[in-house]
Amino acid sequence: MPYFDVASTAPLHPVAREALGAALDDGWADPSRLYREGRRARLLLDAAREAAAEAVGCRPDELVFTSSGTRALHAAVAGALAGRRRVGRHLVVSAVEHSAVLHGAESHQADGGAVTEVPVDRSGAVSAGEFAAALRDGTALACLQSANHEVGTVQPVQEAAEACRAAGVPLLVDAAQSLPWGPVPGGWSLLAASAHKWGGPPGVGLLVVRKGVRFAPEGPRDERESGRAAGFENVPAIVAAAAALRAVRSEAAAQSGRLRELTERIRTRVPELVPDVQVVGDPVRRLPHLVTFSCLHVDGEALLHELDRAGFSVSSGSSCTSSTLTPSHVLKAMGVLSEGNVRVSLPLDVEPADVDRFLAVLPRAVSAVRARLAPVGPVAPEAGGAPGPAVRVAGGEPGSLVVDSLGKLCPIPVIELARAIGEVPVGGTVTVLADDQAARLDIPAWCGMRGQEFVGEEAAERGAAYVVRRLV
Amino acid sequence: MPYFDVASTAPLHPVAREALGAALDDGWADPSRLYREGRRARLLLDAAREAAAEAVGCRPDELVFTSSGTRALHAAVAGALAGRRRVGRHLVVSAVEHSAVLHGAESHQADGGAVTEVPVDRSGAVSAGEFAAALRDGTALACLQSANHEVGTVQPVQEAAEACRAAGVPLLVDAAQSLPWGPVPGGWSLLAASAHKWGGPPGVGLLVVRKGVRFAPEGPRDERESGRAAGFENVPAIVAAAAALRAVRSEAAAQSGRLRELTERIRTRVPELVPDVQVVGDPVRRLPHLVTFSCLHVDGEALLHELDRAGFSVSSGSSCTSSTLTPSHVLKAMGVLSEGNVRVSLPLDVEPADVDRFLAVLPRAVSAVRARLAPVGPVAPEAGGAPGPAVRVAGGEPGSLVVDSLGKLCPIPVIELARAIGEVPVGGTVTVLADDQAARLDIPAWCGMRGQEFVGEEAAERGAAYVVRRLV
Repeated sequence: MPYFDVASTAPLHPVAREALGAALDDGWADPSRLYREGRRARLLLDAAREAAAEAVGCRPDELVFTSSGTRALHAAVAGALAGRRRVGRHLVVSAVEHSAVLHGAESHQADGGAVTEVPVDRSGAVSAGEFAAALRDGTALACLQSANHEVGTVQPVQEAAEACRAAGVPLLVDAAQSLPWGPVPGGWSLLAASAHKWGGPPGVGLLVVRKGVRFAPEGPRDERESGRAAGFENVPAIVAAAAALRAVRSEAAAQSGRLRELTERIRTRVPELVPDVQVVGDPVRRLPHLVTFSCLHVDGEALLHELDRAGFSVSSGSSCTSSTLTPSHVLKAMGVLSEGNVRVSLPLDVEPADVDRFLAVLPRAVSAVRARLAPVGPVAPEAGGAPGPAVRVAGGEPGSLVVDSLGKLCPIPVIELARAIGEVPVGGTVTVLADDQAARLDIPAWCGMRGQEFVGEEAAERGAAYVVRRLV
Repeated sequence: MPYFDVASTAPLHPVAREALGAALDDGWADPSRLYREGRRARLLLDAAREAAAEAVGCRPDELVFTSSGTRALHAAVAGALAGRRRVGRHLVVSAVEHSAVLHGAESHQADGGAVTEVPVDRSGAVSAGEFAAALRDGTALACLQSANHEVGTVQPVQEAAEACRAAGVPLLVDAAQSLPWGPVPGGWSLLAASAHKWGGPPGVGLLVVRKGVRFAPEGPRDERESGRAAGFENVPAIVAAAAALRAVRSEAAAQSGRLRELTERIRTRVPELVPDVQVVGDPVRRLPHLVTFSCLHVDGEALLHELDRAGFSVSSGSSCTSSTLTPSHVLKAMGVLSEGNVRVSLPLDVEPADVDRFLAVLPRAVSAVRARLAPVGPVAPEAGGAPGPAVRVAGGEPGSLVVDSLGKLCPIPVIELARAIGEVPVGGTVTVLADDQAARLDIPAWCGMRGQEFVGEEAAERGAAYVVRRLV
């Protein structure tokens, strides 16, 4: 069963499993106790800290273990902001940070702080110059991920760190996706990561705070882990996490080229095999194991189910897969198609034959979903789509059409637009009323892919009205 | 190697170990994913939640898994206070709560909230009446542990819950020590516990919030665990924790009487075997497996080392064992002797022969420490102690003596007092200058045990001056 979602979580690495078993025998006691079981746990904890610090490229006393990557990011954002509160309350983040960073920023804002979100280009990368320009007097902290978790794009961390250093602002790097592949370069000040992303057990995050960085832990005090991570130390899991990081690092060097070739194969072949696909993310400056694409007129959740039935586990940033009806903030910030989104992230030991099987299965899976969503016929206007079930509402100028897609989830509004466009003359408009937020992203993206003009978005009683002019 | 410190942490229960192994195979994936690995993890998580809820006596949707008991308590205190902020900002806690609750209270106070600490009697118990009297208009939350973690005294939770219900105040129960023994009785509103205390793995806490209790999670939002416990769900550890709780509960019913008899043996025999010992905690309303005593003129850390060398792992609430120089807040609140403190907490499978061996070893261990601390001779005044190395300072009235114990750690100030008392006539006083905070507790306790009069404490340039009048 090929599992292609290691960017969510990786199964426990065999080395981690062995280390966990041994540490459950020897490291279960409270490492702050004086008796032999406690001293043994302390020794294991110290050794794990040294191993993790070596992999990160920091001093052991700069690194603490938290209970998760999310907790590490929450603690890093809150602690760095509190530590520099006298300097100011301005926070800089990229628009495509992990939700843990953005939720930290949200809390900061709710508490009266200011936040600047640095936009990204269509590949998902921030510009180092724009990032530097966001720093100002009163900036307490800047956050930039080493690589994006949804599209794999590598960020210019080194340049951002230089700009931050010049401005006297600490830079927090979320290294969750890249740490298994190597240390984060550059003069960053804080770093966070998550062990279950590299085959360590769940329950272990890393928080690194460089010496000299002002840091005031938030929340009730707790003497463990230098006062930076409350709660009983999870020594067995920490030992396993450090062992897995070391093991994965040595494998990563050997596997990186192989995985890059396999994801390149997916990047190239998918648009050849499946019509109306956008491959997203930077084609070169990217993680070796991760590739993301979106399929027009496809419900992401339905596609995931099709692929699951075919034996492949992948994930999606489509709004259809979540209860929030909001498409992935990453795809949104990039301004790319969000519907039918599929993220493939390959494990280190992936078999090339499984990638080929995935490529063989995908076209059928996409067609099946498309057929279910548009049973009456093809939805490309050039093929003369038969009238679908969309409700045309009265009103509008002659040669224009209003389609009521209110209450319909992505990709239905886009499918209804595709059907309606053939019914207006070239130069005429179709106005789509929709309240699924993905429409805001997917209707302009559809226009770009189809060569139609996206006129704009207008306010509506409910949802929004998206106006499209037929050009072809 | 008898390990007698399960109140700190218990080794992994065999059932937990087996469950952990199986759940690492089947439950490692992200339970929010739609593919089969994710669905399997979700099923395991749901089943674990049901099992834990059944053991607690609550609905599954009232229970979330946190990353530790400490986190559960921090989240419970902050969330309940925030949820009832409009009602008021007054918090009631017992003086002997776990530090996680008291640190939560400290944070609340630093943030402008009000805190009432309900005192305890010499057995460590709060009076239900006093607890009820602390509730007032504007009380947002009250906290009471089910049983004390240092001395084992069971608290009147049911009566406190009734008083809270009458006053319309939610009661948070820290059930960390008692949950393995059975559900917490009474109409409490919130409950927290920690899996590694019952033989579950570290990294799992329980937070229960009864339906209808106002609760506003603090910190950055996170959709997992009903928004009450941020971070990737640690499904394998959660599964193991729930399995261990179930297993331990069924054993506890059978072992409770046996362990109570063994701790009773320690309670009775220790004062017979070792001179100058105070057994502390309620002799009847107590946890079955835990017993605590303090030894006069003994350095707790040295005694722990002696016992460790003899093969016994126990813990201590003596200040000498920590870097803070503050004796356990529990012993302090009880007003009992803190020096030479030993807490014995027996595992479910303890062998009676090991308890007997402990009783055989203890007198020698205490004597050895006492001999090292007072090498010149016995320190009991009735034995006519030889002059020790304490510095007598000039000044004071005739027939009185001032002993400078500044900079000396417990139990040295008490040992120096014991030596000096023989040098003043009956009716004369010894004034001890000391800056170790344990002296505040241990000098009055010593007076009580020796039949001398504790006159009081006076302000001093450094530390405090403790005045003792010789009566015998």
